[in-house]
Amino acid sequence: MARNVIIFDTTLRDGEQAPGNTMTPEEKLRLARQLDALGIDVLESGFPAASEGDYRSVREIAQEVRRPVIAALARCHEKDIDLAGEAISGAERGRLHIFISTSDLHLKHKLKISREDCLALTRSAVRRARRYTDDVEFSAEDASRTDLDYLCAVVEAAIAEGATTINLPDTVGYAVPAEYGAMFRAVRERVPGADRVIWSAHCHDDLGLATANSLAAIEAGAGQVECTVNGIGERAGNASLEEIVMAGRVRPQALQFRCGINTQEIFRTSQLLSYLTGVFPPPNKAIVGRNAFAHEAGIHQHGMMQNGLTYEIIRPETVGIPGSTLVLGKHSGRHALERRYRELGYELEEAMLEEIYRDFVALADRKREILDEDLLALLHDSFHDAPEEYHLTFLRVVCGSANAQAEVRLKGPWAGERNATGSGDGPIAAAFSAISEIVGRPIEVANLSLRSVTPGRDSVGQVFLQVRIAGKSLTGHSASTDIVEASARALVHALNKAHHADRLEASALNSTYLWGV
Amino acid sequence: MARNVIIFDTTLRDGEQAPGNTMTPEEKLRLARQLDALGIDVLESGFPAASEGDYRSVREIAQEVRRPVIAALARCHEKDIDLAGEAISGAERGRLHIFISTSDLHLKHKLKISREDCLALTRSAVRRARRYTDDVEFSAEDASRTDLDYLCAVVEAAIAEGATTINLPDTVGYAVPAEYGAMFRAVRERVPGADRVIWSAHCHDDLGLATANSLAAIEAGAGQVECTVNGIGERAGNASLEEIVMAGRVRPQALQFRCGINTQEIFRTSQLLSYLTGVFPPPNKAIVGRNAFAHEAGIHQHGMMQNGLTYEIIRPETVGIPGSTLVLGKHSGRHALERRYRELGYELEEAMLEEIYRDFVALADRKREILDEDLLALLHDSFHDAPEEYHLTFLRVVCGSANAQAEVRLKGPWAGERNATGSGDGPIAAAFSAISEIVGRPIEVANLSLRSVTPGRDSVGQVFLQVRIAGKSLTGHSASTDIVEASARALVHALNKAHHADRLEASALNSTYLWGV
Repeated sequence: MARNVIIFDTTLRDGEQAPGNTMTPEEKLRLARQLDALGIDVLESGFPAASEGDYRSVREIAQEVRRPVIAALARCHEKDIDLAGEAISGAERGRLHIFISTSDLHLKHKLKISREDCLALTRSAVRRARRYTDDVEFSAEDASRTDLDYLCAVVEAAIAEGATTINLPDTVGYAVPAEYGAMFRAVRERVPGADRVIWSAHCHDDLGLATANSLAAIEAGAGQVECTVNGIGERAGNASLEEIVMAGRVRPQALQFRCGINTQEIFRTSQLLSYLTGVFPPPNKAIVGRNAFAHEAGIHQHGMMQNGLTYEIIRPETVGIPGSTLVLGKHSGRHALERRYRELGYELEEAMLEEIYRDFVALADRKREILDEDLLALLHDSFHDAPEEYHLTFLRVVCGSANAQAEVRLKGPWAGERNATGSGDGPIAAAFSAISEIVGRPIEVANLSLRSVTPGRDSVGQVFLQVRIAGKSLTGHSASTDIVEASARALVHALNKAHHADRLEASALNSTYLWGV
Repeated sequence: MARNVIIFDTTLRDGEQAPGNTMTPEEKLRLARQLDALGIDVLESGFPAASEGDYRSVREIAQEVRRPVIAALARCHEKDIDLAGEAISGAERGRLHIFISTSDLHLKHKLKISREDCLALTRSAVRRARRYTDDVEFSAEDASRTDLDYLCAVVEAAIAEGATTINLPDTVGYAVPAEYGAMFRAVRERVPGADRVIWSAHCHDDLGLATANSLAAIEAGAGQVECTVNGIGERAGNASLEEIVMAGRVRPQALQFRCGINTQEIFRTSQLLSYLTGVFPPPNKAIVGRNAFAHEAGIHQHGMMQNGLTYEIIRPETVGIPGSTLVLGKHSGRHALERRYRELGYELEEAMLEEIYRDFVALADRKREILDEDLLALLHDSFHDAPEEYHLTFLRVVCGSANAQAEVRLKGPWAGERNATGSGDGPIAAAFSAISEIVGRPIEVANLSLRSVTPGRDSVGQVFLQVRIAGKSLTGHSASTDIVEASARALVHALNKAHHADRLEASALNSTYLWGV
């Protein structure tokens, strides 16, 4: 009989913690809503003690997203637990997730405490967490490298104090499937009260084994798996939600578990995360990569036409990849546009449709055929995560064999327009120099990447930018057939976010996290 | 006692077959030389019957790369086997790799033959292959979905006819580790002569389990694993060489196998492949991703400073990631440049050093600090895979709020320079339009991507381009602080390759493959 497994999504916590994945509170809420549509059971929303911004973001998600359990992370410190407890107090169902390292290596080198100290901290932390909620998860960080007897003692203490979920993470991605499963079996056999709690797996992919380890834990009795969309996360990332879920769907007899994920939302969720962070999965990423369902080879294609299952164990529709690419053009109306977005899974409100339609008409003027990918780029571009305080009204760049020169006009928190010229070693440097002069702020580029969303010389280029503006790390993105213009608009986008953050005094945007799992 | 496992690399065959990974014969030879330095045991170099270009490429690699076994693929057709046999005839040690589908699904829908036909084809093909070499590998395509009794019968026939390696691929990435291992155990127990051959695993990552399945096969007695660098390959890709190898290194007690890979060449090989195809692994790719060794989180960093092993199970040096980023500038001389390349693992010949030094001086004029990444970009740019028939001598582009205009001057297979102007919806479209007019050939852009190789506004942008020129699919790349210029140079690079291919009548560049595994 297939058991039900709880899908605990930590994209917004462990995933967001990795370099390049930083999201603003607005972006996190948007992703949280999509994770809700995906059907995840538990949504780990952040680490409230890490920063004011994280606290605010967890609070907001707890209030706005009502169906999933909303989890917040805390170290075994009173202050952490109190902050996390307050942050989830508005949730329909809130969970506190308490963690402490239990391996000797971590106790000695990181925490510098004894095993006894760690045990005492576990007891007091779980007890305190229970003041806020009946749903308390305890994680023994670096469990897979922890002495088994000691691990059992810590876990026993956590259960005795009222923890309802016990997570045994492979924090550094060190375990192999057989031993990870064996650890779950051993702890579950030896710890009193094991049958009263839910056992949870949390795997990292440092050796490429995160999915296999998660499945091994399920086979060994784990009732929850912790994972992220696209497998993002620290270092090599966390176990990938889509791989675990689809393995269970494709091989129900072999794996004997089920979960509540609406698989048709998988691709859309993966794409949204990519747009928000600017980090797209590689073409060969299982389930969600651009090539995951592609068949270039002749015989494969031939076989495919005869019977899809010859080379394809998952149908693209199952994970929500749109079946056909309907082409729109300059004569397509508002209605056709709205219908295509609906077919792609997006219901647009009147005002948003109106705005996107304007952009669509402008794009159709420049580009003959508008494909689904273009529509998605327009949609993601039109999402406002910050008020449009700055606005690019004119740009002219001359570049090539000589030094590049740019002329920029910008509207901003001032009357009328301001303009400036700038020069640089390339068109983007020149445009950025002019913009920096107008806004009077130093701008440091950390990373800039571009992808063409559709083939063709008139393709739309999507620019993702990571910058530091007055010490704050921010991302900006934009799409245009002109990549220099798109880069300038991406910078203006980042400026709008910086302005918004300044007003909210969101120290979050400039904070670093303080912890592990 | 740890067993030795043969590393069979199929980056140039199964990897290259995936969309976007096409390489020219020159690029393949360059990668083959690096794979040799990496220490792989068997190098699958191509599928000679697929195209004239593949045949030529296999022949060239067989003659030039002498240490590893050079394998070539063939279907169970006389012509395939003869072509492959001829192609490897110049190798120090050559292997023929014969394959046929054995699952009922493939027999019925793809091959449309009976089980008896398949058995007969297996026998005759292996027999014919033995005319060319004593080293014959037989693959039962889609083995993991093949009826076990029938699989044993086919394998028995292959062994009886003289196959020395038997590969049981999980062609569609459908297996889970326990059953993939069980298949190896069952076949090895039941087939007469099982102890005379080497058993091989070949896994695909459609469910994210390719590495785990490969390790399960090793545990069940496989003495060879087939894999690719960066895990590239059809759909979700093949098992990743670096993950399998490093799992064995990091967990020797748990996994009990060893191999001859020089792990310090792993990162360099990964980077070379990425430069050649323009497809870089995602930041969170195990072992070779940009973040694989990064630690953003505060506590992690703190732990790291105390003891690297707290969060890092592999030291970056072990896989050849350069430890420190030495910064060079405009005052650095030829000698400093040569030394830094040597430290990065590249011995430059005099002529190449001279050329790169010229580019270095030009770059130092535009960019204050030159980092290792910049040096690698210069190095990869200076590798000539085609004679420089076309050369961009002047470029001027005006773009921004209005339509983009470009003026281009080009040297080519004509006297002096030719010039043209072009316009388009963006600076790249305008430049391409002018270039297309000068060369008088239609140019279709399939994909264009850009990455900044180092942070900073004066960063070098690296452009990777996929185009179709007169029906041929080609890639081009270039690096510059000016991305419009880099794009134009990337197109000129692709034009040079097209010209080179025309002269060689290399139909290879325009062919599709015809088969699976």
